[in-house]
Amino acid sequence: MSAVATSAADAMARAKAAATNVLHAATGAAAANGEPATRGGADHAARIHQSVVHRSPLHAARLSYRPRMPPLLRGCFQVLEGDATSAESDEDTIRGLFPVLFGQPTVALVPNRGTPVTMGNVLRVGFVLSGGPASGGHNVISGLFDHLHERNMDSKVFGFIDGPSGICTGTYIEVTAELVDAFRNQGGFHMVGSGRTKIHSPEQFAQARATAEKLQLDGLVVIGGDDSNTNAMLLAEDFAAHGLKTRVIGCPKTIDGDLRNQHVEMSFGFDTATKVYSELTGNLGLDAISAKKTFHFVRLMGRSASHITLEVALQTHPNLTLIGEEVEAKKQTLAQCVNAMVELIMERGKLGKNYGLIILPEGVIEFMPDVWALIQQLNDILAGGSVSFDQVVVKLDAQSRNLFLLLPRTFAEQLMMDRDPHGNVQVSKIESERLFIEMVSNELAKRKADGE
Amino acid sequence: MSAVATSAADAMARAKAAATNVLHAATGAAAANGEPATRGGADHAARIHQSVVHRSPLHAARLSYRPRMPPLLRGCFQVLEGDATSAESDEDTIRGLFPVLFGQPTVALVPNRGTPVTMGNVLRVGFVLSGGPASGGHNVISGLFDHLHERNMDSKVFGFIDGPSGICTGTYIEVTAELVDAFRNQGGFHMVGSGRTKIHSPEQFAQARATAEKLQLDGLVVIGGDDSNTNAMLLAEDFAAHGLKTRVIGCPKTIDGDLRNQHVEMSFGFDTATKVYSELTGNLGLDAISAKKTFHFVRLMGRSASHITLEVALQTHPNLTLIGEEVEAKKQTLAQCVNAMVELIMERGKLGKNYGLIILPEGVIEFMPDVWALIQQLNDILAGGSVSFDQVVVKLDAQSRNLFLLLPRTFAEQLMMDRDPHGNVQVSKIESERLFIEMVSNELAKRKADGE
Repeated sequence: MSAVATSAADAMARAKAAATNVLHAATGAAAANGEPATRGGADHAARIHQSVVHRSPLHAARLSYRPRMPPLLRGCFQVLEGDATSAESDEDTIRGLFPVLFGQPTVALVPNRGTPVTMGNVLRVGFVLSGGPASGGHNVISGLFDHLHERNMDSKVFGFIDGPSGICTGTYIEVTAELVDAFRNQGGFHMVGSGRTKIHSPEQFAQARATAEKLQLDGLVVIGGDDSNTNAMLLAEDFAAHGLKTRVIGCPKTIDGDLRNQHVEMSFGFDTATKVYSELTGNLGLDAISAKKTFHFVRLMGRSASHITLEVALQTHPNLTLIGEEVEAKKQTLAQCVNAMVELIMERGKLGKNYGLIILPEGVIEFMPDVWALIQQLNDILAGGSVSFDQVVVKLDAQSRNLFLLLPRTFAEQLMMDRDPHGNVQVSKIESERLFIEMVSNELAKRKADGE
Repeated sequence: MSAVATSAADAMARAKAAATNVLHAATGAAAANGEPATRGGADHAARIHQSVVHRSPLHAARLSYRPRMPPLLRGCFQVLEGDATSAESDEDTIRGLFPVLFGQPTVALVPNRGTPVTMGNVLRVGFVLSGGPASGGHNVISGLFDHLHERNMDSKVFGFIDGPSGICTGTYIEVTAELVDAFRNQGGFHMVGSGRTKIHSPEQFAQARATAEKLQLDGLVVIGGDDSNTNAMLLAEDFAAHGLKTRVIGCPKTIDGDLRNQHVEMSFGFDTATKVYSELTGNLGLDAISAKKTFHFVRLMGRSASHITLEVALQTHPNLTLIGEEVEAKKQTLAQCVNAMVELIMERGKLGKNYGLIILPEGVIEFMPDVWALIQQLNDILAGGSVSFDQVVVKLDAQSRNLFLLLPRTFAEQLMMDRDPHGNVQVSKIESERLFIEMVSNELAKRKADGE
């Protein structure tokens, strides 16, 4: 008891200290995070510099890390052109969209012991961060900066502020060695900020060209996911069609894991997310086998692709994993998936193991054919305006009615109520792990009542 | 597009591999986690040993860590008795509960260069893991094992299976060097499992004495939180009163951070939880200053104590932190806390910063005097059976009525519906961060409509 009392008094004293911090942070900048006080403009770098002078122990520890470089990049290398590229599918459509750039050769980097890299040209390269932040983004910038300056000390690197909109408005900072050094190995995209603007109108393309010409950019590196890389390709085509010297380079960053191919082993973002999720999910697995009383249902990111869940399953070995693509291929219904979980739990119960770990991607129920059919019918029924629960039940066909009545009432009502601006049912708002927990609990209770 | 297609095909192949894993795991043991195939009995250790032969890279990396030992424990030391202990408060009551042990001397370890520790007696010591698992538990066991065996190779360490119930039933394993080595620096409590049984009946105390006598225990180490340490004290008193030689040692493990005093700088569990939470919360802070479009509301563990939130606030510097004890001391109402958040958001908006980080302990609203008053009245009103929303509104006093109507309707209805077996309103089921998100959004919309 004395421990509690001492600790509570202590806590109050520290709470006061924390409150002071809060007031400071609320009126000033969140300086501890290295956040710039204002955005845009030439003084951006100076302000960031000021705010990163006081480094936390974590910041310092991360700075001391030296990323491993591929041996090729540590020495001298040259660019070697290979076969012409093509498209996996829709070749004619894609050729039509990119008449100038379609069919460019692949390029490979190969060792070149003849010419030292320090003899390179002065290059002026811009970069832009797009979409959600991912650990590794600041290291793309560091690597770019280091390489250009190893080639020629007079090279320049420009960072566009707050995503692609910074290209259109011409808002950027010139990156200095001091700035790069402060952000090496640090997570987040806060050196220059990120954004989700798409460059699509003729005006925006004209603005982007004006910026590229004003800065005399030799290159523009777009760091982002599938949408951003598509946008980068459109920008590259536009620059080339207008005779600009600016080459556009797409750098694959995505949490979804959907930018893999024979040239891209792994995108950053996906790498971090699956490691963090695997650690947390693995901890829940250890909790299950330590306390021996809980089934953990874990929902992971992944709506149209289940790559994250698959990778986490391979790392943590749960007792059951749902993979959206597999559910779709096997045409598994919601009831079948619930039954698979119920049977797992009952089988483990027979072994005296009333605990376990089940993981699933957030979008898994959208892969189920019966859920899909129900959503289509609900959209039709609800399009005419307010309809009661009982009226909905009557209007559904037999299969969808069974499913609708099988859903816990709160989830069924959520589907009816929570519609998007077009009036469509928002199945994506359903928290799938909670749905499964409730349906599995109900089914277990039913089987228990039936004497199983 | 080709990247997506390749990746999806790839995913299907891996999904099949994962499905195979699932079937294996569902019928066999989750061997990858080092889980024992069956529990209890003398063959427990052998089975665990079998299941830890195949070590993952993470397991191996953790094994290679060498914890830092306090210099005193690295050399020879002896135990020195000091002043008699007492109680911070309720001295007479506590003396009455522990007539044999009350007033024991404090003890200190001091260097002793005269006698080498290897000359110690053979000791037989049991241990039990209690409550939620925490990183560090297996290292308490390793440290105990190492020290006893350094003193005398013939010492024995016994681990009771699945928590305090293992003491009563006499279910244990004898810990071997091989077993300890497999669990060094590993999280979880799965070497022997954990449990939450309290030893309280005369029969249970008699069973515990029988086990201690049968195993000729010199000591019993109870690794757990405040309840478990109270139980350890009762067990110690009972053993002493019956003349057993078994000394009971409490080892403070808790996530709540409420076992701190001048002798306990930090409990394990709290240390891990605040580090993990700080990393995740800090990541959200970086997300906020990178994407510059989101206010993150983070709910952290902590119902009756806000120590975790306080520690995470000190590590991550959010823009606003609610501390339950501070809310209580200042008698802050729910509306006042919502207004503080709204004003923070508006002030930051004026600076062009439409993003930020707000953190709070899960139990914070239970510290608010107006919420407390509302709950009392709801308990009275709902005790008589089913009452409609409108009837509840009429029966509340003016202050509670205002608060009840201020709550988003879904939360108000949840309070009415979701009651515990005694019929009491379960404010603890309210997800406080969602409540604040909705109330803050509503208030911001209201002020916007009012032209602010």
